[in-house]
Amino acid sequence: MRYRPELTDAARPSTSDVEAIDEHGATRRVSIAGEHPLTLYVDKRELVTIMTLGAAPEALAIGYLRNQRLVDRIEDIAAVQVDWETASVAVTTREGLKDLEAKTAKRTKTTGCGQGTVFGDLMDEIDRVKLPAGARLTRYALYDLLDRVRLHETIYKQAGAVHGCALAQNAPERAEILMFVEDVGRHNAVDAIAGRMWLDAYDGADKLFYTTGRLTSEMVIKCAQMGIPFLVSRSGLTQMGHEIAAKVGMTMIGRATHRHFLLFTGAERFVP
Amino acid sequence: MRYRPELTDAARPSTSDVEAIDEHGATRRVSIAGEHPLTLYVDKRELVTIMTLGAAPEALAIGYLRNQRLVDRIEDIAAVQVDWETASVAVTTREGLKDLEAKTAKRTKTTGCGQGTVFGDLMDEIDRVKLPAGARLTRYALYDLLDRVRLHETIYKQAGAVHGCALAQNAPERAEILMFVEDVGRHNAVDAIAGRMWLDAYDGADKLFYTTGRLTSEMVIKCAQMGIPFLVSRSGLTQMGHEIAAKVGMTMIGRATHRHFLLFTGAERFVP
Repeated sequence: MRYRPELTDAARPSTSDVEAIDEHGATRRVSIAGEHPLTLYVDKRELVTIMTLGAAPEALAIGYLRNQRLVDRIEDIAAVQVDWETASVAVTTREGLKDLEAKTAKRTKTTGCGQGTVFGDLMDEIDRVKLPAGARLTRYALYDLLDRVRLHETIYKQAGAVHGCALAQNAPERAEILMFVEDVGRHNAVDAIAGRMWLDAYDGADKLFYTTGRLTSEMVIKCAQMGIPFLVSRSGLTQMGHEIAAKVGMTMIGRATHRHFLLFTGAERFVP
Repeated sequence: MRYRPELTDAARPSTSDVEAIDEHGATRRVSIAGEHPLTLYVDKRELVTIMTLGAAPEALAIGYLRNQRLVDRIEDIAAVQVDWETASVAVTTREGLKDLEAKTAKRTKTTGCGQGTVFGDLMDEIDRVKLPAGARLTRYALYDLLDRVRLHETIYKQAGAVHGCALAQNAPERAEILMFVEDVGRHNAVDAIAGRMWLDAYDGADKLFYTTGRLTSEMVIKCAQMGIPFLVSRSGLTQMGHEIAAKVGMTMIGRATHRHFLLFTGAERFVP
């Protein structure tokens, strides 16, 4: 039986309505995206406060710890308990966090977000990542992914101001979406996907990762850490995102909308 | 005479070219935005590593220290020296940073960026912000701002993957752009504007602030801290961005493009 920590299920409503005045002077009710502080405690120790939409707070907490390399495997987490009244998520580990002091000593504000926090030096880890060389992405599957993402019901369509990430199953002719997470920060969305991948025991090798956000260094690093060989975005990329994707041998596709795309790295895995 | 710290002038090229394969199988040269680590040292002590486009590194360093409330005034900074060979910016202060330990003790990952770092509790400060009640923004000036931003030459048009911020002079019939900064992270762009405002001794009261990015809590807080009563974005806003803008009495306009906009807060300052 698959291991699962004890979990709350505390997703909160993603939008609320406010009044605004439009250019004609008319008052309109407008949906806006939620944004809520959520302080992460690990074994009763305060680690960080994340501002989040709140759609997947348990997975976000788990994925944050995973992507920051503070926890090695889901079995090390005993419980994840979100309490919005105190704006907190309490994670209980089996044996404590490893190397917390050393890892938190080095902060990196990262680009995608402008000023993100990465504990430890994730770049060092990148050398150890091996993405499956034999994986293939067909043009059919890519277009299917783009269609499915476009048709997906989203908070973005309703309220804007959020980024979305999707994890899809990579098959020769289709790309079914397994998870779709939106958040006010795109790094939160990718962390929540990472958390759900652990919870659902998904491997990255036969998956596709889609993001509405830009392909900056941190996005590429996180995708590589999850072991996903294909990274697709409707946005552009940065120089460092490009360099890291080339280095780890990731197949990276940017500016992907409708039937347009640019294949930047890892062309050997793409089947046109 | 206006005070200026000793400064390097180390802006670096913002784009580079890479090859990509498009949907027709054709190889194309594509411009992509730079992204470079820049480690900030203050009085030889390492503070943070910022991933940046590198267009305004000195102003970014100064604005970061300003917006994190680690330095109170430009006169406290003796020198700002960027060296891209070592990917570092060395800030020398006159009397050291105040309360560094206490401020760095509390980290907040903030939304806009998803995972930003805010030292100290900026929310506490918001109660002390007073924005000028008598300031007015006319519809003419708003439309002029939107036109100028639209026509501005940008890295975004060339390479995408960056956010832009503009500071404009607020006049009854026009809104001349005083500064325009782009960066891979939108918080870097606003920090660089904050740094240049200090360098050029600009007050915020008679200015407009424009951002391509979303109006999340951190964006609103930074605009308020700079004393700018008007915040305009082509994007949407979040619930917390809305709450804070309402609380500090900021005039906040979202979804502003061409002749469309939504006025969310501070309608009393707007002259239709």
